Amino acid sequence: MQQKFISDKIAIIGIGLIGASIALAIKHKKLPYRVGLYDHNPAVRNEARQLSIGDEICEELAEAVAGAGLVILAVPVGAMAAVMQAIAPHIEDGAVITDTGSTKRSVIRDTKDLVPEQCHFIPGHPLAGTEFSGPAAGFAALFKGRYWLVMPNGADPEKVEALEELLTRLGAMTEQMTADYHDRVLAITSHLPHLIAYTIVGTAVDLEQDMKNDVIRFSASGFRDFTRIAASDPTMWRDVFLNNDEAVLEMMQRFSEDLTYLQRAIRWQEGDKLFDLFSRTRDIRRSIIDAGQD
Amino acid sequence: MQQKFISDKIAIIGIGLIGASIALAIKHKKLPYRVGLYDHNPAVRNEARQLSIGDEICEELAEAVAGAGLVILAVPVGAMAAVMQAIAPHIEDGAVITDTGSTKRSVIRDTKDLVPEQCHFIPGHPLAGTEFSGPAAGFAALFKGRYWLVMPNGADPEKVEALEELLTRLGAMTEQMTADYHDRVLAITSHLPHLIAYTIVGTAVDLEQDMKNDVIRFSASGFRDFTRIAASDPTMWRDVFLNNDEAVLEMMQRFSEDLTYLQRAIRWQEGDKLFDLFSRTRDIRRSIIDAGQD
Repeated sequence: MQQKFISDKIAIIGIGLIGASIALAIKHKKLPYRVGLYDHNPAVRNEARQLSIGDEICEELAEAVAGAGLVILAVPVGAMAAVMQAIAPHIEDGAVITDTGSTKRSVIRDTKDLVPEQCHFIPGHPLAGTEFSGPAAGFAALFKGRYWLVMPNGADPEKVEALEELLTRLGAMTEQMTADYHDRVLAITSHLPHLIAYTIVGTAVDLEQDMKNDVIRFSASGFRDFTRIAASDPTMWRDVFLNNDEAVLEMMQRFSEDLTYLQRAIRWQEGDKLFDLFSRTRDIRRSIIDAGQD
Repeated sequence: MQQKFISDKIAIIGIGLIGASIALAIKHKKLPYRVGLYDHNPAVRNEARQLSIGDEICEELAEAVAGAGLVILAVPVGAMAAVMQAIAPHIEDGAVITDTGSTKRSVIRDTKDLVPEQCHFIPGHPLAGTEFSGPAAGFAALFKGRYWLVMPNGADPEKVEALEELLTRLGAMTEQMTADYHDRVLAITSHLPHLIAYTIVGTAVDLEQDMKNDVIRFSASGFRDFTRIAASDPTMWRDVFLNNDEAVLEMMQRFSEDLTYLQRAIRWQEGDKLFDLFSRTRDIRRSIIDAGQD
């Protein structure tokens, strides 16, 4: 493999599910990199150390990024600006910086005056995750067969290629797109589904106590999938909604109109309207299976 | 096993996912019953015959129920009244009738003047299913470890006990409740989640064509679970919403209020309100795992 980063050291900032999984995948795939990690939470650093994640868990942010050819920011999107500012004085000229945040317009906006001039910032987003969080939730196969979206954002094409090559070696399929397009697609495929799952589980939580217990016992059909989604990391998802507010609010508006249409159909016993929609949505499932995404 | 039905013949009307799975479970568990099945669709009867489901696929409804000690109606809830009317002249005095419909108040209301006087109608509802439908989707283990809700509805307790014993032998856990309570609990655990899944997949279907393709490709995080739910049988689900309209509309109203609250929190960047809800919903997931329902 031709070395296209300025060094063989990779720094990962944030040792959650994603950061830990990247380190584990690099080791599992035996890629020729040294991995240094840092997390602002000492308990997380200790946990990561006990789990033997990466080559070194650093006590200081500066130490983690020093000499790195690639720095990966795997922190909630609301923390990207602060982390970019903190690493800027310590990062090598020529280093590539990427992130793994679920919103892209906000990350570019928040960091654009903070990226050191001699560095290459290439925002990214792996479409991979589980409802678990923290370093112990990480696993090497997390990115296998999953898309990893990359926003070239005007960066040197050779650096973008080097990053995509690394991500492919982690098992992912890379795809380039703009931040605008990313944020709209993710609003409907990921952000709105999460918001809805959180909402319906919340609605159930607020039912009278007896019924709440039975909702839990009889959760098998439908609701259980929502509770899994609604168990995702609260900080990460709060930041997602605050930072992709425009696209999420647009998709919510469409969704609410569509739901109101069905509500009216139920109230007026218009079965044909229900049947028509339920038949159309079935076809989408087939397309997803055909696309190999299930 | 003490024989508590008036004969060892079981009739299953409707050979979809549920009807076929009951027949397959009876055979798999080697229970001492002969099973005759009927479906109003000749293509489904032929398919069931090719799949060797049950002891006999009957060409006539009358033939299927003749001599049966237990008749199981596994048809969409909107068809229950018509089927009850059609079987009434052919059913044995003393036979038990049950159904597997997802709404219970409507089934009781629609059939109460149609159940033959000498028969015992005990409504039921297995909380089991997949997004697939038809006889080929049936499998013997479908009910294993799943709840099967039973509404005694004033029937002879010995007959209720006999039915519950059979259902337990199919692998299910039975639980008695009233139809009213059933319909409210299912509205939030099953009916509303399905309606929401159908809605959001429909919202995505209506996006411009380019984005729709990418919604399918990038469906991994969140949306994919919704498409699975939204692939469920359109006829069955149309009937569910038309027949549990009262409870579904009440739960929808609560859900819409809660969603509007979050929408407003996103618009006004009130992260604490989002974080608070997202933390509470996480606990529900733990309760479900503790309850062994995942």
